[in-house]
Amino acid sequence: MPKLVNHASRKQELVRAVWRVLARDGASGMTMRQVSAEAGYANGALKPYFPTKADLIDATYTFVFQQTNERVVQATGGLTGLAALEVFCREVMPLDTERLDEARVVLTFWQEAAHDPTRAEHNQRFMKQWRDSISRWLAQAREAGQVADGFDLAARGDALLTYLLGTQAAAALGMHNGSPAHLERQLHAQLDLLRAGRRNGPGTARVPCCDALSSPTSRTA
Amino acid sequence: MPKLVNHASRKQELVRAVWRVLARDGASGMTMRQVSAEAGYANGALKPYFPTKADLIDATYTFVFQQTNERVVQATGGLTGLAALEVFCREVMPLDTERLDEARVVLTFWQEAAHDPTRAEHNQRFMKQWRDSISRWLAQAREAGQVADGFDLAARGDALLTYLLGTQAAAALGMHNGSPAHLERQLHAQLDLLRAGRRNGPGTARVPCCDALSSPTSRTA
Repeated sequence: MPKLVNHASRKQELVRAVWRVLARDGASGMTMRQVSAEAGYANGALKPYFPTKADLIDATYTFVFQQTNERVVQATGGLTGLAALEVFCREVMPLDTERLDEARVVLTFWQEAAHDPTRAEHNQRFMKQWRDSISRWLAQAREAGQVADGFDLAARGDALLTYLLGTQAAAALGMHNGSPAHLERQLHAQLDLLRAGRRNGPGTARVPCCDALSSPTSRTA
Repeated sequence: MPKLVNHASRKQELVRAVWRVLARDGASGMTMRQVSAEAGYANGALKPYFPTKADLIDATYTFVFQQTNERVVQATGGLTGLAALEVFCREVMPLDTERLDEARVVLTFWQEAAHDPTRAEHNQRFMKQWRDSISRWLAQAREAGQVADGFDLAARGDALLTYLLGTQAAAALGMHNGSPAHLERQLHAQLDLLRAGRRNGPGTARVPCCDALSSPTSRTA
């Protein structure tokens, strides 16, 4: 009787093997044979699941994205507004070894997707999910008076998403601005600036604004 | 009599050929033979200058970095503070076709450097130059009262550098937050927030702060 194969779990095993190889050695020298060996399979076992190296990288990126989102759902449970946004940023930023390995996978995927419209579109769907979440949390923050009314909050949210992309490169390349301590300070500085112009709530004293002057009508510059 | 070869100019030609190939086809399929053909040389002509594909990518990244810096020097001539910072950001951000091609080279280099300490260090020296420039312009901005005193300006400058890295990925992958119009809005939103807490100068009315309350001593939260 032929052995039953759980295809979903085999795919998972292979993706985890790619992740280990990418994190350790990078994509330049990665071969299908190497990934098979890492997962404990014969060379031919890979092809039915992932015909090309680009397919493998795409699947591994999807795995990293889903893994990050599972952490985000856990960490943001019950939170709204700036609190949820801050927790989300921390889960995306490469602040520990696991997320640094994720960043290395992200960089590999980017380089593939920059010349592959199908994979770029795949990524766009993922990024839209994050963009929508950031918009929702910022709208809640504005509603709760946690941030100022007068700013282009949509653009600030987009800038934060773009910033989070940058954290992947800064950390994976060991840049000075990419160490966990520096990334934490950068996140604080950005959230502090968002909070600075608000009308009420704790922390307003940091850059105090006159309630009388900072009504929405006076901000239509 | 043997033909005299200008080695520096031949290197430049080869680097420009790599740039065209990378921008058009990406690094995955790039071969030394392809680059030689693009530059109009025989296959063997490449090796004495660039022994490996990684050397070629490194040299092309250096070329892009220097090219960007030449534009920055031109564009920031005579400017200081936030004006210089804004102009610098515009030169680094992929706002036109040429800089989008540069972003594709950057992504290729990152992926190599994430697993190559020597190249990562090479990049760190480059990024330190930009970090120092950003610090200098922000210090001038604070001195001129263009930004608030109470913030962690060093961290905000680092966040801006990290953001600029993110713009490369956002644009090269055609993300929604990476179009020229969106990047322009994001830059404005970030500079507006920086300006918001300042004591004086035009635009303060946008999020007005009481001069009496916003003295440095009252901001030591």
